[in-house]
Amino acid sequence: MISSREEVTQQIVSTKVRKGIKWSEVASAIGLSKEWTTAACLGQMTFDKSQAETVGDIFELSDEAIAWLQIVPYKGSLPTAVPTDPLIYRWYEVVNVYGSTIKELIHEEFGDGIMSAIDFSMDIKREADPKGDRVNVVLSGKFLPYKTF
Amino acid sequence: MISSREEVTQQIVSTKVRKGIKWSEVASAIGLSKEWTTAACLGQMTFDKSQAETVGDIFELSDEAIAWLQIVPYKGSLPTAVPTDPLIYRWYEVVNVYGSTIKELIHEEFGDGIMSAIDFSMDIKREADPKGDRVNVVLSGKFLPYKTF
Amino acid sequence: MISSREEVTQQIVSTKVRKGIKWSEVASAIGLSKEWTTAACLGQMTFDKSQAETVGDIFELSDEAIAWLQIVPYKGSLPTAVPTDPLIYRWYEVVNVYGSTIKELIHEEFGDGIMSAIDFSMDIKREADPKGDRVNVVLSGKFLPYKTF
Amino acid sequence: MISSREEVTQQIVSTKVRKGIKWSEVASAIGLSKEWTTAACLGQMTFDKSQAETVGDIFELSDEAIAWLQIVPYKGSLPTAVPTDPLIYRWYEVVNVYGSTIKELIHEEFGDGIMSAIDFSMDIKREADPKGDRVNVVLSGKFLPYKTF
Amino acid sequence: MISSREEVTQQIVSTKVRKGIKWSEVASAIGLSKEWTTAACLGQMTFDKSQAETVGDIFELSDEAIAWLQIVPYKGSLPTAVPTDPLIYRWYEVVNVYGSTIKELIHEEFGDGIMSAIDFSMDIKREADPKGDRVNVVLSGKFLPYKTF
Amino acid sequence: MISSREEVTQQIVSTKVRKGIKWSEVASAIGLSKEWTTAACLGQMTFDKSQAETVGDIFELSDEAIAWLQIVPYKGSLPTAVPTDPLIYRWYEVVNVYGSTIKELIHEEFGDGIMSAIDFSMDIKREADPKGDRVNVVLSGKFLPYKTF
Amino acid sequence: MISSREEVTQQIVSTKVRKGIKWSEVASAIGLSKEWTTAACLGQMTFDKSQAETVGDIFELSDEAIAWLQIVPYKGSLPTAVPTDPLIYRWYEVVNVYGSTIKELIHEEFGDGIMSAIDFSMDIKREADPKGDRVNVVLSGKFLPYKTF
Amino acid sequence: MISSREEVTQQIVSTKVRKGIKWSEVASAIGLSKEWTTAACLGQMTFDKSQAETVGDIFELSDEAIAWLQIVPYKGSLPTAVPTDPLIYRWYEVVNVYGSTIKELIHEEFGDGIMSAIDFSMDIKREADPKGDRVNVVLSGKFLPYKTF
Amino acid sequence: MISSREEVTQQIVSTKVRKGIKWSEVASAIGLSKEWTTAACLGQMTFDKSQAETVGDIFELSDEAIAWLQIVPYKGSLPTAVPTDPLIYRWYEVVNVYGSTIKELIHEEFGDGIMSAIDFSMDIKREADPKGDRVNVVLSGKFLPYKTF
Amino acid sequence: MISSREEVTQQIVSTKVRKGIKWSEVASAIGLSKEWTTAACLGQMTFDKSQAETVGDIFELSDEAIAWLQIVPYKGSLPTAVPTDPLIYRWYEVVNVYGSTIKELIHEEFGDGIMSAIDFSMDIKREADPKGDRVNVVLSGKFLPYKTF
Repeated sequence: MISSREEVTQQIVSTKVRKGIKWSEVASAIGLSKEWTTAACLGQMTFDKSQAETVGDIFELSDEAIAWLQIVPYKGSLPTAVPTDPLIYRWYEVVNVYGSTIKELIHEEFGDGIMSAIDFSMDIKREADPKGDRVNVVLSGKFLPYKTF
Repeated sequence: MISSREEVTQQIVSTKVRKGIKWSEVASAIGLSKEWTTAACLGQMTFDKSQAETVGDIFELSDEAIAWLQIVPYKGSLPTAVPTDPLIYRWYEVVNVYGSTIKELIHEEFGDGIMSAIDFSMDIKREADPKGDRVNVVLSGKFLPYKTF
Repeated sequence: MISSREEVTQQIVSTKVRKGIKWSEVASAIGLSKEWTTAACLGQMTFDKSQAETVGDIFELSDEAIAWLQIVPYKGSLPTAVPTDPLIYRWYEVVNVYGSTIKELIHEEFGDGIMSAIDFSMDIKREADPKGDRVNVVLSGKFLPYKTF
Repeated sequence: MISSREEVTQQIVSTKVRKGIKWSEVASAIGLSKEWTTAACLGQMTFDKSQAETVGDIFELSDEAIAWLQIVPYKGSLPTAVPTDPLIYRWYEVVNVYGSTIKELIHEEFGDGIMSAIDFSMDIKREADPKGDRVNVVLSGKFLPYKTF
Repeated sequence: MISSREEVTQQIVSTKVRKGIKWSEVASAIGLSKEWTTAACLGQMTFDKSQAETVGDIFELSDEAIAWLQIVPYKGSLPTAVPTDPLIYRWYEVVNVYGSTIKELIHEEFGDGIMSAIDFSMDIKREADPKGDRVNVVLSGKFLPYKTF
Repeated sequence: MISSREEVTQQIVSTKVRKGIKWSEVASAIGLSKEWTTAACLGQMTFDKSQAETVGDIFELSDEAIAWLQIVPYKGSLPTAVPTDPLIYRWYEVVNVYGSTIKELIHEEFGDGIMSAIDFSMDIKREADPKGDRVNVVLSGKFLPYKTF
Repeated sequence: MISSREEVTQQIVSTKVRKGIKWSEVASAIGLSKEWTTAACLGQMTFDKSQAETVGDIFELSDEAIAWLQIVPYKGSLPTAVPTDPLIYRWYEVVNVYGSTIKELIHEEFGDGIMSAIDFSMDIKREADPKGDRVNVVLSGKFLPYKTF
Repeated sequence: MISSREEVTQQIVSTKVRKGIKWSEVASAIGLSKEWTTAACLGQMTFDKSQAETVGDIFELSDEAIAWLQIVPYKGSLPTAVPTDPLIYRWYEVVNVYGSTIKELIHEEFGDGIMSAIDFSMDIKREADPKGDRVNVVLSGKFLPYKTF
Repeated sequence: MISSREEVTQQIVSTKVRKGIKWSEVASAIGLSKEWTTAACLGQMTFDKSQAETVGDIFELSDEAIAWLQIVPYKGSLPTAVPTDPLIYRWYEVVNVYGSTIKELIHEEFGDGIMSAIDFSMDIKREADPKGDRVNVVLSGKFLPYKTF
Repeated sequence: MISSREEVTQQIVSTKVRKGIKWSEVASAIGLSKEWTTAACLGQMTFDKSQAETVGDIFELSDEAIAWLQIVPYKGSLPTAVPTDPLIYRWYEVVNVYGSTIKELIHEEFGDGIMSAIDFSMDIKREADPKGDRVNVVLSGKFLPYKTF
């Protein structure tokens, strides 16, 4: 009996290590970006039936696990409110140090509202640089204005 | 007597509202990006002497305040560990929901290490879209590998 | 010198008590709902120029304060993460006790996504009831689906 | 041996995924709203004997599990004080951003007291809208006045 | 300008110390219990006009302060979630050690529901005892049943 | 092997549900109040040998479990510092809203000191009331004065 | 106008530094231990009239401040739940590392109950030692047994 | 396979209850104080080989468990930063209420530095008293001065 | 099935105790410093294939566990934000007491930027001292300057 | 009237910025290391009379402020338990990532005990490096063994 999506995520992660699967391979198999695919495999997104079956094949999942992949999960991938992992912390730090800046500039350009984290996409790429390659990330989120009512 | 950078930040913010100054105008005046300039005006970065004087002119700051702009500040722009403001929270949510994904994909591409938040830049743009304009943000951070020793 | 929207909110609240103004009167004056108007007066929404001037007249605000009303505020109206005030706590309790239910039922109806808190409106009414009048609240938020990418 | 209601909730959730049951079907079977029924199945409400047996049939529960459904549970459905799941967080955000507004308007209408979260009901519906369907939620709670003593 | 009820509470507390007023005297003057009166003076309850004026006379308050006494306050009298003061902590400890007991016994007697903290009264008395006098506290709260809907 | 009192508490709770035992029956069997008995069964108090054996008979406990009932437990019955369960939260709210009042009135009557939570008893009763029955709770704690030294 | 005991404590501490007063001198003047006297001067205990006047003379306090010294304070002398100051942290560490030991040994000797922190005294002395002098602290607290009821 | 000292502590505690062993007996067997011995058995100190074997005999531990007793443990015996157990909380309260006093008096006697919690001992005794026996605790810690460098 | 690096760490720690292995021996076997090697064995660094196999031999790990050693772990070795273990706490205290000093002096020497914790090494040595041997730790981290953009 | 060491620290910091003083110059003037001197100026250490007067001359302090410099301060220089400033956070991260490693290796070399943060010194230097200069920090703390008693 599987009682949470986390159990399925652990099976996926475990099989990935054991079989040496890459996230980009999984993404190719289901025909979507590596970013969305990885998030979904890590229990943050919902697969449709055919995607879930493909993922199930790759990670040797049971039918029950495949059913769970099609259920909307309880989201949030971090074990603590302030992440301890250095890579993820740097992102938290960007939000902390540049948060007020991001807020000011989006409001200066668009007025009151937010950048959606739902109608949202993300693209992570290597950016070659003679002084040391860089991680280049493009975030795109729909601007949603606050409305009066 | 000014006893912290925060007091200078409050003077800048106050004058900005009173005089209707835009961050992009300040950025033009000092010849740097609107992102870095805003972060610096909000007390997160350090100005050099000539930049500080330009900012001092724009915001009618005293010599003492201008001296403070050249001192490295204690950084962190958020009043709580989990931000309450909806615009900034959406970024925290991105880190929370996609944090493990970002970690996996950077490691898949680069191996163990981090994306620097210091050797870092950010560019925020409007992205026209018939279904509603989007906020497009490009983050670029140098990859820093963990080394054995 | 005013250095934050909170100071303006305190002036509004102070004048409201001193002069015995009602939120519904302010709402009538600017021609919007009492819910949006109150949220805006309490520092959670952004007024346009003409609304700000009307509010300024009612609460005897300075030009500087009126300028602040047109600046997007840092939002969040609660002093602690878990509110201590009994009326507001009951709402926190509803989210806590019924949160997983709300999540399940919205997903059952709409699939993966959220109910927007930005493209959102709220209407609070008295509902007469022989066993004791009730508070009736209608919340309406656009459904925003997660998309694959 | 079952030692907490949570174990029964996990069995229900697990069976729901495996058999593809809908909450609205469970609600029809016991003749109550989908909101109350879901909350009860998720361990937040107490079933009477006949309801518990119906639920037990649907989810193939043991007699011991059915007994647990009739015991008042320790309530609270969220794993953290500030929820990380985006759908539930939006509700927390509504309480945070509009909390002081809700408080002001209920007091303006009713005087000092609260909106009950116990003598309370909730109705979640799809609201068709050409610009994108909306989630419409009606909350109804008895007003309980503070009394002097 | 008074911008919060807390300022009025501080004036009351300050004058009480300076003039040596007793809470029971204030209670007599407004004709209510010492428990409700003290809670109200400490900023947790709302006075009506005539009570507020009596309190204003006793504590030499301005008209503006008297107006504030008639506004519903943001409640919660403790500076930290877990109180540090030993007298108040013992009450927190009672809730912590006996909380599950209280829950079990009220449910055993009444079924699912709560003991109201709104339709509530409290009476604190000295109880003579040869082994050392005791504090006797009677709490009375209406039972509010959860209802199905 | 049993390694904590909590395991015994879980066995008791589990058996109580399975066999439909009432706390008041257990109290009668050991000849003490339902309040103390329930607290002890829930792992907050220490049974003597004969009480432990009676409890062991009722809940079908092993000798090892009966030995654990006679060991002083680590007390505290709540999973979080601020309880989420509505019934228990109302008590936390009473401490929060009336805490400073309780402190003031006990000091006004007794001087500096505390109301003991150790030399303490509690009595929970149904109080019939035409407007809805009430929960009546009497708390009695010895006053312990601070002494100079 | 003085609105809290903390203000009086700050005056005492400020005058102590300015005039170079020692706590032991204050203790001699009021004829009590240096431990109780210091705690009282730091806002944790309540002076009687004559003690308060002596303290008022030493620290040049106003009549209003002297009145405050006779009011029971809200206790707790640490700014954070886990103290940052190294000297005080070592005591927190003793409670953390030896807490379960202290509990076990007091229960082994006395049965269920506590060591009172109210009917309590403390004596801090220098203990000469050739390997480096030691701080010797004697704590004495009445044992208070839990009783059945 | 044993993967942490905590498992060994649980075995010790479990066997202690089952066999009715006293800490003072264990202390006699290894020839050290009951305070140090109990702390060590509860996973806060490190045994040498011969002590570990004695403890292993008493509590019927495996060779692997005996090996663990000789490994320096991760210390800290409390499940929460602020302890909920009443006996241990009283000690936390002493640190909270008297913490600033202890700090002042040690500095008045010794200058800047701390009382060591490492070069430290503790002695817990019953102190007979006609008004009720007392717990008498002597703490002795080396004074460690801060040095300039 | 292994579902996290923590399980592998527990196997390593468990085998280390059982077989009496020293970290310096493991370091010699893989030809790196004892500091890096220990951190890696404790789940904070990533081994390459040959290192992982050597470690696997020493600690008798399965192929699956050896595969996990080559996966970048989620880092952070402390169970609480403020560590309770006295040895580790002293380091936290150094950061707390000397943190602002370290910041000031690095900025005085280098300007705005940070000392890297990624391009970083650490060397821990015994420093003989007649007054008691000392722990000597050398930390070396690349200075990374903030750049304007 | 100065009521805390923090006020003196703010005066020092303010004057430092206004007059462009360097910490190394202050250190030279009092003849101690720049590390100790900076910590002391930032309110973490205690000056003797002659040092305080020198510091008073440099920063133009009043006699009262100079008296405060000679009083042992309440230590801890960080505004939050987890520091937000990137430079200081990296040190927190070192403690988090390498904390268990440091613990293991000090115990492997010295047995059970700690590295003192009191009998402690720190030296921060620039380390020239063709790939970018490094910050080199040497920490030296006396090893303090736990003793049996």
